[in-house]
Amino acid sequence: MKIAIIGLGLIGGSMAKAIKENTDHTVYGYDLSDTVQKKAKLINAIDEPLTDELLRDCDLTIVALYPQAAIDYIRDKQELFKKGSIVLDCCGVKQAVCSQAEPIALKQGFVFIGGHPMAGLEHSGFDHAEKALFKNASMILTPTKGNIQDVEKVKDLFTSIGFTNLQIATPREHDQMIAFTSQLAHVVSSAYIKSPAAMKHKGFSAGSYRDLTRVAKLNENMWTELFLDNPDFLAEEIDGIADRLKEYSRAIREKDAQTLRTLLKDGREKKAIIDGEVF
Amino acid sequence: MKIAIIGLGLIGGSMAKAIKENTDHTVYGYDLSDTVQKKAKLINAIDEPLTDELLRDCDLTIVALYPQAAIDYIRDKQELFKKGSIVLDCCGVKQAVCSQAEPIALKQGFVFIGGHPMAGLEHSGFDHAEKALFKNASMILTPTKGNIQDVEKVKDLFTSIGFTNLQIATPREHDQMIAFTSQLAHVVSSAYIKSPAAMKHKGFSAGSYRDLTRVAKLNENMWTELFLDNPDFLAEEIDGIADRLKEYSRAIREKDAQTLRTLLKDGREKKAIIDGEVF
Repeated sequence: MKIAIIGLGLIGGSMAKAIKENTDHTVYGYDLSDTVQKKAKLINAIDEPLTDELLRDCDLTIVALYPQAAIDYIRDKQELFKKGSIVLDCCGVKQAVCSQAEPIALKQGFVFIGGHPMAGLEHSGFDHAEKALFKNASMILTPTKGNIQDVEKVKDLFTSIGFTNLQIATPREHDQMIAFTSQLAHVVSSAYIKSPAAMKHKGFSAGSYRDLTRVAKLNENMWTELFLDNPDFLAEEIDGIADRLKEYSRAIREKDAQTLRTLLKDGREKKAIIDGEVF
Repeated sequence: MKIAIIGLGLIGGSMAKAIKENTDHTVYGYDLSDTVQKKAKLINAIDEPLTDELLRDCDLTIVALYPQAAIDYIRDKQELFKKGSIVLDCCGVKQAVCSQAEPIALKQGFVFIGGHPMAGLEHSGFDHAEKALFKNASMILTPTKGNIQDVEKVKDLFTSIGFTNLQIATPREHDQMIAFTSQLAHVVSSAYIKSPAAMKHKGFSAGSYRDLTRVAKLNENMWTELFLDNPDFLAEEIDGIADRLKEYSRAIREKDAQTLRTLLKDGREKKAIIDGEVF
């Protein structure tokens, strides 16, 4: 296949490196930064910088941009995508992107498939991109209009670059799940680190603190956009955990050992069921 | 030294294994379970099961029990501890234990030092005890009455079994910090896993979810006791994060990108300062 990758940041750059490393596909890459494009070509992460001319010939275009930029790109280039070719985004929200991209695809005769590679680092940019970023990761696809052959083509590609779990969902299912598994984790981490005690705790912490605050180190521009593209599911998750937290503090203030123990036991049991330790 | 270890669970058992592995001290161990005592002796984690007679001769007694059981043990055996010998607990709360143990020590002429080894696993019991459990861990000591030689004796022992960071604090400082670094982490993890979305998320999760929910797998009996021995600091931490979380959900519901970005940026910057990446 001829594959175009739009945006050579952490995700697009890693896709380029992984595809060149593991497959014989031709990769054309585009990045706003000319330096990044040149770097990518020099280390063989791409075969050539992408031009409009080359784009017309691509079988698959992977758009690895922030949501609004991805939508803008697809709108701007809609007449250039080859008829029947696949365009796939990599955004962490799917309803906001798919609802915009799908009508364009239908009108122009290309196939749009929503994609969300569940991988990342606390760093961004091409310099942190890794060909092994997707090893054992989950790829979520939201192919509302594509036919099964198109999905299989994409699936084969992602399997060949390390993904071991392919999840098919509707954009809405995706956004609801991701609000819980990923977006809420970032909000909680961010809120956690802001305790007045945080600045004084050095030497008093162990693994649990490290785990709870790891993703507080986030890119606020990207996450603001992602959160505001999924406001209902996310706000509901946040309010949900805030309300549940108050049940614990109430039991603690009232020295109600029985309620507190039940709250903790319930969490332990849910975790065990979800982790597959109880059937 | 002759060292008594009371309670051969995860912490006491690991202490026994680590001391026997790394030092020439003699270790006497006691556990409620006769089977555990025998096992410990058979694999050379202890030299002998502890008797009252042997206890009278010990230079250091490490009490690795839950808080109330630790207090009860020290009260029951107060007349047996050798004059001038050191008694150290391993509880995750210090005000509740130290306030009870110190007057007894003063009266009976032994030295009580509060201790909290910042190490653990999501499992408990002697079978999970590991001689390397304390490698690179922090040991917090709250030696309000002991002289410096006693603290150094204890420090040398803990350094020899893997601890690389020794922290000296008052019991109150300890309890305030631990409410934030450890207890809050367990409460948040427990509340996180109870989202209605949790049961359906398989295949949609990545590292952030795993990190945020890891310690939901806890021993509710132990943690209920620890939490209720530190109610004020912990309830304040819980209410604090619950209130901060509501700021995020409010900004998201109101689609207030600027406020949301500022909330996230503030968290990222605090995390960077605490991690020593910004000076």
